[in-house]
Amino acid sequence: MYKLTILTVGKAKEPWLQIGLEEYTMRLKGAIEIHWRLAKDEKTLAEWLSEEPYFIALDPKGKLLDSVAFSAFFFRELEHRGCRLTLAIGGAEGFSPEVKSKASHLISFSPLTFTHQITRLILLEQLYRALEIRRGSPYHK
Amino acid sequence: MYKLTILTVGKAKEPWLQIGLEEYTMRLKGAIEIHWRLAKDEKTLAEWLSEEPYFIALDPKGKLLDSVAFSAFFFRELEHRGCRLTLAIGGAEGFSPEVKSKASHLISFSPLTFTHQITRLILLEQLYRALEIRRGSPYHK
Repeated sequence: MYKLTILTVGKAKEPWLQIGLEEYTMRLKGAIEIHWRLAKDEKTLAEWLSEEPYFIALDPKGKLLDSVAFSAFFFRELEHRGCRLTLAIGGAEGFSPEVKSKASHLISFSPLTFTHQITRLILLEQLYRALEIRRGSPYHK
Repeated sequence: MYKLTILTVGKAKEPWLQIGLEEYTMRLKGAIEIHWRLAKDEKTLAEWLSEEPYFIALDPKGKLLDSVAFSAFFFRELEHRGCRLTLAIGGAEGFSPEVKSKASHLISFSPLTFTHQITRLILLEQLYRALEIRRGSPYHK
């Protein structure tokens, strides 16, 4: 069982997106356990990250990967870090230079700006896809 | 009023995603009218596109834009095309070389592979964001 902690800024959630997030959390169950830590604002998130020894930051200016490369990267990281990882989702402007320089890896899902909530959905779907790519299932054809 | 026709392959929709799509369609109402044409399979979609004189194709191998550049591109295209545009969402593997060579523009939202349904949601949110960027609203800070 892998354990992933996701740090992000909490905001009121759209009920329909909440259902989507729960669906992917369920699909990941048994393989990747997700623990969310929702900061009240970006400052708090930056404080939490200043205490994290190792984390992957999702930032629009980070490295762009395709889904196969993301899968390989994600599982390599998990296994090198004792099956536990911390990942942080940045705000609309991405992270501050301090957070970026402290991040172990800066990964981008797109140069486009997404809402926090849609980024969460994309992340969970990519984690599920990463798992299916690793299993060689037909989900990622 | 702008009119956008979106051509894609129809599949059973997740109810929660359907609610999200409806929410963004509602937000776009009054500014951009969306008309969906759902093909039964990728072959039919390719046939439809062979008859389209001008269309933008969303393809993982297309040009990556940030949200501000996408907004500028999208409205420039709309205005150059009499306020009507056609956009096509490709399958997991993107479009065939024939479709790609026929597309007026190839745009990518990410090198990552998304589900058809999530791509629809990302597209509608980017259209709404494009509108808000153009209006100079604080939605896209």
